[in-house]
Amino acid sequence: MPADARLQELAAGLAARREAGLLRRRLCLDSPQGAEVVLDGRRLVNFCSNDYMGLAAHPEVTAALARGAERWGAGSGAAHLVCGHLAPHRRLEEALAEFTGRPRALLFSTGYMANLGVVAALAGRGDTVLEDRLDHASLIDGARLSGARLLRYRHADAADLESLLAAATGRALVATDGVFSMDGDLAPLPELAAACRRHGAWLMVDDAHGLGVTGATGRGSLEHFGLDTDAVPVLVGTLGKALGTFGAFVAGATELVEHLVQHARSYVYTTALPPAVAEATLAALAVVRREPGRREHLHALVARFRAGAAELDLPAAPSATPIQPILLGDSDTALAAAAALREQGFLVQAIRPPTVPEGTARLRVTLTAAHSEAQVDALLAALAGTCSGAAP
Amino acid sequence: MPADARLQELAAGLAARREAGLLRRRLCLDSPQGAEVVLDGRRLVNFCSNDYMGLAAHPEVTAALARGAERWGAGSGAAHLVCGHLAPHRRLEEALAEFTGRPRALLFSTGYMANLGVVAALAGRGDTVLEDRLDHASLIDGARLSGARLLRYRHADAADLESLLAAATGRALVATDGVFSMDGDLAPLPELAAACRRHGAWLMVDDAHGLGVTGATGRGSLEHFGLDTDAVPVLVGTLGKALGTFGAFVAGATELVEHLVQHARSYVYTTALPPAVAEATLAALAVVRREPGRREHLHALVARFRAGAAELDLPAAPSATPIQPILLGDSDTALAAAAALREQGFLVQAIRPPTVPEGTARLRVTLTAAHSEAQVDALLAALAGTCSGAAP
Repeated sequence: MPADARLQELAAGLAARREAGLLRRRLCLDSPQGAEVVLDGRRLVNFCSNDYMGLAAHPEVTAALARGAERWGAGSGAAHLVCGHLAPHRRLEEALAEFTGRPRALLFSTGYMANLGVVAALAGRGDTVLEDRLDHASLIDGARLSGARLLRYRHADAADLESLLAAATGRALVATDGVFSMDGDLAPLPELAAACRRHGAWLMVDDAHGLGVTGATGRGSLEHFGLDTDAVPVLVGTLGKALGTFGAFVAGATELVEHLVQHARSYVYTTALPPAVAEATLAALAVVRREPGRREHLHALVARFRAGAAELDLPAAPSATPIQPILLGDSDTALAAAAALREQGFLVQAIRPPTVPEGTARLRVTLTAAHSEAQVDALLAALAGTCSGAAP
Repeated sequence: MPADARLQELAAGLAARREAGLLRRRLCLDSPQGAEVVLDGRRLVNFCSNDYMGLAAHPEVTAALARGAERWGAGSGAAHLVCGHLAPHRRLEEALAEFTGRPRALLFSTGYMANLGVVAALAGRGDTVLEDRLDHASLIDGARLSGARLLRYRHADAADLESLLAAATGRALVATDGVFSMDGDLAPLPELAAACRRHGAWLMVDDAHGLGVTGATGRGSLEHFGLDTDAVPVLVGTLGKALGTFGAFVAGATELVEHLVQHARSYVYTTALPPAVAEATLAALAVVRREPGRREHLHALVARFRAGAAELDLPAAPSATPIQPILLGDSDTALAAAAALREQGFLVQAIRPPTVPEGTARLRVTLTAAHSEAQVDALLAALAGTCSGAAP
């Protein structure tokens, strides 16, 4: 079709999406990320970032980024395999390997690229990738790109996985979120690992929302469950959430990391992260290690929110993590609730299909270590006035 | 297979690759990116970065990153569509739209993700994506992910494209590099655009290696050829090369950008770039606009290198851009040449299959505005001693 007709087709698609209440719109913050942000000239209490440990604007982390810029420049200038791998990248890889208790770690530019590259480098035509139905988009895209057969098991259902594993052909790779990004629940990792062991499959966990938050010392979902590299050979972590910076990594055996250096196309064919961002991440890791109180405060806030939500009869999902969804059902209801909360001074995002399944639109409340008890109490009161009794 | 057997399989694959001379190894620089770098305690003149304008360590750019860190924090804390879109992102999108002369621009976290997301959002099952055989890996992966039929036309061959377009079904999207990353030649964009117009196909150009460098004012390959948004509806640019920072963007019609906000999965499902990186990129753009002398110096170095290479009978590819490949044929020869140059104080990377076709291993010399004439002359002398008379 002519170029103009193609533009008209895109415009028609946008109009249809707007009509269905599914058009995505961007807000633009006029402040750093944090417990309070500025939007359209108003100060709002912010309950929608993934900055779980409150490190994105932590003075030690921002100072490390600033010092890193002066010392190492603004960019890496090339891919890791050309000449873009600088000393801060190496130090961060070593620190992440140590933090996760694994032989090696490999930096990726984003979590999306880590998942995409790892799945496609570990599975191919004739193989089988098995994924939780609620896995992150990047794990699904990785499987689609790999050419392997993709099978989806029922959410958090190890028995369903096991029955699919029995029918898997070729190499079998099981990939799951550690903490599900839109629901906040943990994957049943011990059961998944046992099923993988019985069927000779590799287990890959994307712990984007667990790392730094979950587990006694913030090592993530694997620490929570006491699982080692044998049980979960492939661990992916994200640096742009609890660590407050940007990028991602994969941690595992030396052979795994060396294989990815050779074969993960999203690793090979991309510019390395700015070395200053690696410096900032090292500073964030140091804060995570040194200040367990931040995590304790966060978990206390989670418990406070859950107790309050139960008392107020809010349609909260059963999550024990900082991701606390309030299930509202249809998109219009979720959008209206988010708008009402904003009027009252709270920024909470409505999450709608296709990001979540049809009929499960929700408010995705996220708590961070930067929040105060008073802010959480105020949010609960506002939610009670806005969503109480709403049924998904 | 059991987990241990899988590790052994990976180890065997690595051993085979080593045996074939194809194992990729990373260097680790102990200095910022620049015309001179420090590797293993030695200072080397660096001819392998993509920092074409010498901006990665430019004081205004690094100062903007440092100030941005203090003002905006270390990370964005969320996806653009949740609450990770901050004022510096908006200002950079506006500046990039203005710089490229297009209605809108949309930031992506990396060039790989921009290409992947755009191709998959514009083509689907039943459609046809047509790509140059030497296109960047991310364009190929985007087509594979899209589910569309992928057809590859002979390198830079508009007639071959035209014959394939005649057989295309569904929507047709033609995607090409503007400047080919491993060869340095320009795509024949006017001829490709004419073929697209005749067949009602959209043309997408990834100008990763052209933006900031090519064209009278550094607007890239489209400026060089005088092509507008009608001729090339989809333009992708990279921020981690000539602009010296990190990330990428897509520029085009408002309908295109809004469509991508809704449908490009690699846009929706990822954390926004650190706002401080957007500030650094704004500073880099300002330098590119204000100092045309940097580009003039670079083009003079390119001309000097080409004249010298011709005089010395080096097997140089016919490139008029800062990417100046020296074609050596097999991988061992290319590796040996790179090693010999390093002994003489020059960092030049050998590029081997599968990054380039079998039998076309090469040194990929890249020139930047930070180099001096004396450095280029010294490299030519070293290449003459190392590669003269080598036949691909």
